[in-house]
Amino acid sequence: MGVNYPKGQAYFKNETTYSKKQDLATIKKGKFANRGMVFEEAINQSNQYFLDRQIAVIHKKPTPVQIVKVDYPNRSAAVIKEAYFTQPSTTDYNGVYQGYYIDFEAKATKNKTSFPLNNFHEHQIEHMRSCVKQQGICFVLVWFSSLKRCFFLEASLLLELWDNQEKLKRKSIPLTIFESSTYEINLGIAPQIPYLEAVDKYILKLKEHING
Amino acid sequence: MGVNYPKGQAYFKNETTYSKKQDLATIKKGKFANRGMVFEEAINQSNQYFLDRQIAVIHKKPTPVQIVKVDYPNRSAAVIKEAYFTQPSTTDYNGVYQGYYIDFEAKATKNKTSFPLNNFHEHQIEHMRSCVKQQGICFVLVWFSSLKRCFFLEASLLLELWDNQEKLKRKSIPLTIFESSTYEINLGIAPQIPYLEAVDKYILKLKEHING
Repeated sequence: MGVNYPKGQAYFKNETTYSKKQDLATIKKGKFANRGMVFEEAINQSNQYFLDRQIAVIHKKPTPVQIVKVDYPNRSAAVIKEAYFTQPSTTDYNGVYQGYYIDFEAKATKNKTSFPLNNFHEHQIEHMRSCVKQQGICFVLVWFSSLKRCFFLEASLLLELWDNQEKLKRKSIPLTIFESSTYEINLGIAPQIPYLEAVDKYILKLKEHING
Repeated sequence: MGVNYPKGQAYFKNETTYSKKQDLATIKKGKFANRGMVFEEAINQSNQYFLDRQIAVIHKKPTPVQIVKVDYPNRSAAVIKEAYFTQPSTTDYNGVYQGYYIDFEAKATKNKTSFPLNNFHEHQIEHMRSCVKQQGICFVLVWFSSLKRCFFLEASLLLELWDNQEKLKRKSIPLTIFESSTYEINLGIAPQIPYLEAVDKYILKLKEHING
């Protein structure tokens, strides 16, 4: 390999565990934002479970950083000395499941009655719109941390709500819509977030839609 | 947004343009490794072309780094002061095209008669193996820089050659195999690497294989 990766005292326990969003939240607050973090860890554990059992290959993308300065203390180790967080241009997770392209974002809220739409950035919305057009299986896993409830929100419904914010005079998605129009995911142990069950239901719905 | 992303004097012109592999090569040599870089820029340009025209949604993954130390000079900017390059656990590019999961690695060689298999790491091979099992469209774009020729090498053939290195007594893939058993990609201007044409041929071959 020729290059060593010093462990050091990691500020973030594991690079792959925390999203850019969380990183920024963490940095701004100067502490870990527990709410979303625990949810992300549960998703990562679930993805590892799926990977180990050859059920699906789904990974969290690395946090994008712009590297400005790198030091070479010796031939075998490079240390990044100056870098900045940059805006991700896609969602956090993607991969493949039984030939289907899987693409999703994980979002958590403390709210008990609705999910604020300002949790999304325009570029994430546009990415999801593009993925849906390419027939990807695109969705958001929404975690109501106070309620300990998790929902599979298909991107097409999110896009509909996003595009009609003005008309609907609504800047958030009420819990009632989650209850009526999304798939609730019952938490487990292995995997902690068995979201592929919701993906299966969604794929079935898409097929019925095409055939019927 | 609340967070500024200072431009600074970028060591890397554009974070998304250079792969981790290249970064390391760059760092070790103390200069840009032009060969692979130009090829990657051409792929990124092609992906942007496909994205802009809603032909496909394929992105290069960010370079994975382990963040060890972050400074907060003020409320709105975070500066990463210590970080290390980490081993990527997947290939560099993935996305969706007409419902198909696309996953590939880009590799360049100066060699004129063969492509050395040590260009691949075990984890990349294992990732490709997993993707193939999940029916993803998985391949390597190989660039013979001295010959200015580009080939679409399907992962299943690569895996066959990789797994039989001992038996075949061969640590590289001869150019003749590329000429006989892969799709050559004729370079263009927009897109520079029209690799989706090869993807189309490959999908057609897979369908014929299933039906026949």
